[in-house]
Amino acid sequence: MELAVTLFDFFNITGLVAFAVSGVYKGTGKELDILGVSILGFLTALGGGIMRDVIVNRIPVALTGYSDVSFAIGGIAMGILLYRVFQIDISSRTIVKIFDAIGLAAFTVTGALVGIKSELNVVGIIIVAVLTGTGGGMISDLLIGEVPSILREDVYATCAMLGGLLLFILHKLSVPLQLAMFITLFFTLGFRLLAIFKNWHLPRF
Amino acid sequence: MELAVTLFDFFNITGLVAFAVSGVYKGTGKELDILGVSILGFLTALGGGIMRDVIVNRIPVALTGYSDVSFAIGGIAMGILLYRVFQIDISSRTIVKIFDAIGLAAFTVTGALVGIKSELNVVGIIIVAVLTGTGGGMISDLLIGEVPSILREDVYATCAMLGGLLLFILHKLSVPLQLAMFITLFFTLGFRLLAIFKNWHLPRF
Amino acid sequence: MELAVTLFDFFNITGLVAFAVSGVYKGTGKELDILGVSILGFLTALGGGIMRDVIVNRIPVALTGYSDVSFAIGGIAMGILLYRVFQIDISSRTIVKIFDAIGLAAFTVTGALVGIKSELNVVGIIIVAVLTGTGGGMISDLLIGEVPSILREDVYATCAMLGGLLLFILHKLSVPLQLAMFITLFFTLGFRLLAIFKNWHLPRF
Repeated sequence: MELAVTLFDFFNITGLVAFAVSGVYKGTGKELDILGVSILGFLTALGGGIMRDVIVNRIPVALTGYSDVSFAIGGIAMGILLYRVFQIDISSRTIVKIFDAIGLAAFTVTGALVGIKSELNVVGIIIVAVLTGTGGGMISDLLIGEVPSILREDVYATCAMLGGLLLFILHKLSVPLQLAMFITLFFTLGFRLLAIFKNWHLPRF
Repeated sequence: MELAVTLFDFFNITGLVAFAVSGVYKGTGKELDILGVSILGFLTALGGGIMRDVIVNRIPVALTGYSDVSFAIGGIAMGILLYRVFQIDISSRTIVKIFDAIGLAAFTVTGALVGIKSELNVVGIIIVAVLTGTGGGMISDLLIGEVPSILREDVYATCAMLGGLLLFILHKLSVPLQLAMFITLFFTLGFRLLAIFKNWHLPRF
Repeated sequence: MELAVTLFDFFNITGLVAFAVSGVYKGTGKELDILGVSILGFLTALGGGIMRDVIVNRIPVALTGYSDVSFAIGGIAMGILLYRVFQIDISSRTIVKIFDAIGLAAFTVTGALVGIKSELNVVGIIIVAVLTGTGGGMISDLLIGEVPSILREDVYATCAMLGGLLLFILHKLSVPLQLAMFITLFFTLGFRLLAIFKNWHLPRF
């Protein structure tokens, strides 16, 4: 149990940092100042969770506690260092996609969990799972004037949808929540990694 | 009374389905996958109501009950069928504008009603009426990178504004709410249809 | 004390009117109708406060009381008059930037105050300060399809961030709130005016 909590936290932290770094990198080449890229990093890491909390009517945990915010700021600092000091262009590296997949999976689980605790219907649970997992990236895409990549990218939001659905089903089947969370975490991560490496596609419309 | 409820529900359902179909059609020709167009359909149908509920501080009914969500999903399925299977380009058909007007009128009334029950001021009531009636379309326009059509289209948001104002006035005059809702519904619908068929314009700025 | 309240209200009102006018002017040359520019004015003036209230879970004061709304509507009317009747192009005038700075400072203080009363962490307080001060402009920029200027403009959101941080620190040091608000107001205003007239820049990224 202790190990489980620790491992789950580790995934969540990885997600916060990875999303913050990717938010910073989104701002490169856009004539933004250093505050602008920091805002993008912040919103990419925490925006999804904030939107989720607003929807289920609670004050966003990102704005009351200190842990999430600290990791997001660490990720922003890391992103700025990587880009400005070490001049590393990470955007096309596979390692980034793997970290991003870890974040997506962890955020999908925390989102779906909040949905279950707020007694949402199955669609509501899927929506807060998707929003938590992809909302931050969606906000930062909008801010820089791009069509959000989750509307275009293959099998990204799909993973969060399936993850949210899976946690809902496991919960209905009375699987202990801690176990259900881990199954969902690894299912979502695995599905996303398969989509990346097998180059899965949804039908274009 | 029974009939009234039924007729009102019928209008509301028509709106949900019509908005979902129009959301799906917005996504055509944008290189979106099938999930992307479904998200557009979903947000067009339910996004306005979700924004309204967030603003008046209640968990969105679209995410707790099952009826609204079901009709939105039905509308998405219908939109996908119409476009992909029957390859019908509905976007310029007058019938679509009429269905859309029904949705606008129904959503204006439900929005204004929530505003009255939340004890908003008259501007607040008008805003939640407009947001419920046009917010879904606005979100989906933003997601595909277009200036929301309600900022440009003649006499669209205007109908929702006037509808919200009318329901507020009727309520202040102690007209029974059920009756006031019907008057507002048909006023908003009639005003919008007149705007379409008479080709009314607001002054350009 | 009385004077202090009056002066603070005066700044806040100046901000509401200035932001509403600037919102109207944002809509010029965009083929919007008169309702579209009014919506832009409204959202620029009140959108930040509405977003703040949504985040800290209270029904937006802009939608329940009548004072804020009245000043926003006055500002919209003034903006339309200035542009349409007197045909004045204010957009590049320094006086506009000064009024805008007054609004930014006043909204930063009211935002940070709400954050303190909602028991947010320091980052949360800074965020609601920035959101209140810059969120309205951000929404209207997004609606007209532009990258929000706060992501690009030098030392604008920075002022709100520093202001929010300052009020938090003064509050922690047990400075009386009324006094702390005034110090923060003038610090934020002064910092912004210095940034304008000294042409300060943050490093580009």
